[in-house]
Amino acid sequence: MFELNFEINQFLDTYWQKKPALLKQGFIDFQDPIAIDELAGLAMEEDLESRLVYQQDQQWHAECGPFKSFERLEKDGATLLVQAVDHWHPDAQQLVRPFRFLPNWRIDDLMISYSTPKGGVGPHIDNYDVFIIQGEGKRHWRVGARQTLPEFAAHGALKHCAPFEAAIDVEMEPGDILYIPSGCPHEGYAIEPSLNYSVGFRAPDQNDLLSSFTDHNIDNNENALRYTDIPMQTREQPGCIEQTELNKIHQVMLANCQTPESLIPWFGCMISEAKHDLDIAAPEHPLSDQEIIEFLEDGAQFTRLGGLRAVYFEQQPDLMFINGAQYNCENFTKLAHYLCDQDETASELLVLFQDQPKALSLFTKLVNSGYWYAE
Amino acid sequence: MFELNFEINQFLDTYWQKKPALLKQGFIDFQDPIAIDELAGLAMEEDLESRLVYQQDQQWHAECGPFKSFERLEKDGATLLVQAVDHWHPDAQQLVRPFRFLPNWRIDDLMISYSTPKGGVGPHIDNYDVFIIQGEGKRHWRVGARQTLPEFAAHGALKHCAPFEAAIDVEMEPGDILYIPSGCPHEGYAIEPSLNYSVGFRAPDQNDLLSSFTDHNIDNNENALRYTDIPMQTREQPGCIEQTELNKIHQVMLANCQTPESLIPWFGCMISEAKHDLDIAAPEHPLSDQEIIEFLEDGAQFTRLGGLRAVYFEQQPDLMFINGAQYNCENFTKLAHYLCDQDETASELLVLFQDQPKALSLFTKLVNSGYWYAE
Ligand SMILES: O=C(O)CCC(=O)C(=O)O
Ligand SMILES: O=C(O)CCC(=O)C(=O)O
Ligand SMILES: [Co+2]
Ligand SMILES: [Co+2]
Repeated sequence: MFELNFEINQFLDTYWQKKPALLKQGFIDFQDPIAIDELAGLAMEEDLESRLVYQQDQQWHAECGPFKSFERLEKDGATLLVQAVDHWHPDAQQLVRPFRFLPNWRIDDLMISYSTPKGGVGPHIDNYDVFIIQGEGKRHWRVGARQTLPEFAAHGALKHCAPFEAAIDVEMEPGDILYIPSGCPHEGYAIEPSLNYSVGFRAPDQNDLLSSFTDHNIDNNENALRYTDIPMQTREQPGCIEQTELNKIHQVMLANCQTPESLIPWFGCMISEAKHDLDIAAPEHPLSDQEIIEFLEDGAQFTRLGGLRAVYFEQQPDLMFINGAQYNCENFTKLAHYLCDQDETASELLVLFQDQPKALSLFTKLVNSGYWYAE
Repeated sequence: MFELNFEINQFLDTYWQKKPALLKQGFIDFQDPIAIDELAGLAMEEDLESRLVYQQDQQWHAECGPFKSFERLEKDGATLLVQAVDHWHPDAQQLVRPFRFLPNWRIDDLMISYSTPKGGVGPHIDNYDVFIIQGEGKRHWRVGARQTLPEFAAHGALKHCAPFEAAIDVEMEPGDILYIPSGCPHEGYAIEPSLNYSVGFRAPDQNDLLSSFTDHNIDNNENALRYTDIPMQTREQPGCIEQTELNKIHQVMLANCQTPESLIPWFGCMISEAKHDLDIAAPEHPLSDQEIIEFLEDGAQFTRLGGLRAVYFEQQPDLMFINGAQYNCENFTKLAHYLCDQDETASELLVLFQDQPKALSLFTKLVNSGYWYAE
């Protein structure tokens, strides 16, 4: 449905995580996958995270959803932002797919904003990479080179940065794409009522990784390795922590994360867990393996639930991780990888199920969990 | 004041962390450093952690202090336990000192219990090593070999274990010491009103270490290293986490704990932090460097505050860690090590201060913080 109209390898070499890029008409003949009132409807729901940002009397304001009404959007200078719309709106989810030239595990979510003229969230710096796609309307965007700037809270959770010099200064039109690497200041103000689509890429930092690994360890490692000090010798200096003691502490602490491979059980669970709610709707009546086959023989397609995260590791191809859980796929890694690599399955599935009852029964389970659905 | 009466090297070789030992008359002519009513007085204070354990109608009960009165101690079958008495009672603190043949950083605290006849906390397993010293009275102790046993909550925070076979079964008399390694079930019941002193040794486990390190990292590592993926190449399999990616995650996660030495700033702070409140009383009028010298010239001794933890590392002798803070002691490591190694300082201090104004001013600061006090 959406096809990128730029040289991807050149983009990766020149811009990815290095500097901002304007990809003029990155989508040709761009058609908005969602209407403004649909977006507003989603911002009324408990399950989605939404915000309304506006300026009043030269003061910034930010309110959190869910919203009951949208009077403020009848005036200029307002922006409504809704997170993880790809989890709830299959057509909007389509907009994530062209970006799968990047690894799935790096893709965060699709945020959609609607701004009235002059509307914007103000100058700020994100610590994730983002592609901002212009939909309906026009918006004036400014982006600076990666730099450190003073940052301050303009209002509650609205963090702004100091004014910056623009490396890109553009009036975006439908189908234009702006790529902004993490650390680059940016601000956009609508010229006409305007829809913007942000495909975000979050990268974990050391603290994210350490604290998630530690939590996982505490939950899964009840009889954790404990420091011991055999052989012990008397010492002259009781205040000293000796070299062999510190070495043992180091060993105990890192006992189960010495190699990259040892991170797989944790990292697979962690990175496949969605950060926002999913629109999980299991089928009313669980399907049988046989019914799945019949569906497929009738030409049905199965689609992965929007926002569902499914990954496998080059180093451990027998395991698949979906939405925070680990699945053993020994003997049917082909199916597992196919499910992780494709947003939509087609007739190949029938081939993958041939003489593979375990593969079929796992897939049935995933369908009955609401993770894949038939179309 | 207290001197151990057993062969220490032989004890370490044969028993330390291996099996329980009865050290009959481990202290000769043992004199209790604290009276029962003093102990009860401490159990009335907010700052100390205390518990009263007793059986009633064949049910175990455990109450937490501070206590207002002690009716239950007028009857048989009760035990009052007070943690970290060494932090509050200088004479009781003396009982920790003979155990400094073991490294200071491993010593936890001195717990003191008073039991009326038949009183005890019931059969249980600890995950720390302990020396239990018999004071006034007699108590019947049973200790089993290291083993795994069913464990259950006898009452709220009172964890008991199933019955066990005794490897040691003894009527302890004043001055007897029982050494119980972690993991060995034990139970003791008073024969006469009885004081028991427990010098405990806690050893961190992997989860303790990881979560403390992670907290330290979050507090001290604001601009934490973040995962980046330059160079990025297009891929056929977006669902795959490639080997190079997992390697990078591993590197980012362990960026600042690759070597034992890299743990020093965190581990020094962590292990020097007291787990129970200290009785910190800074001098009313801060002393000057000159006054410290005069005190010493007058023959004063300085004593380290009971329970204050002070350590240095063989691998980084220029740093000293006291009560969770790091001190740079370049050029006066001798003073630093002396302070960490000795409970009490004597005239050597004057020598250590000669031509070392920085050493003196650090010590003055420590005295003015209430960490060392003159006697
Ligand atoms: O759409 C907006 O107003 C904000 C977009 C943005 O700053 C982002 O996606 O990083
Ligand atoms: O003194 C007591 O009753 C309990 C002592 C004990 O179990 C210990 O110190 O581990
Ligand atoms: Co932004
Ligand atoms: Co015990």
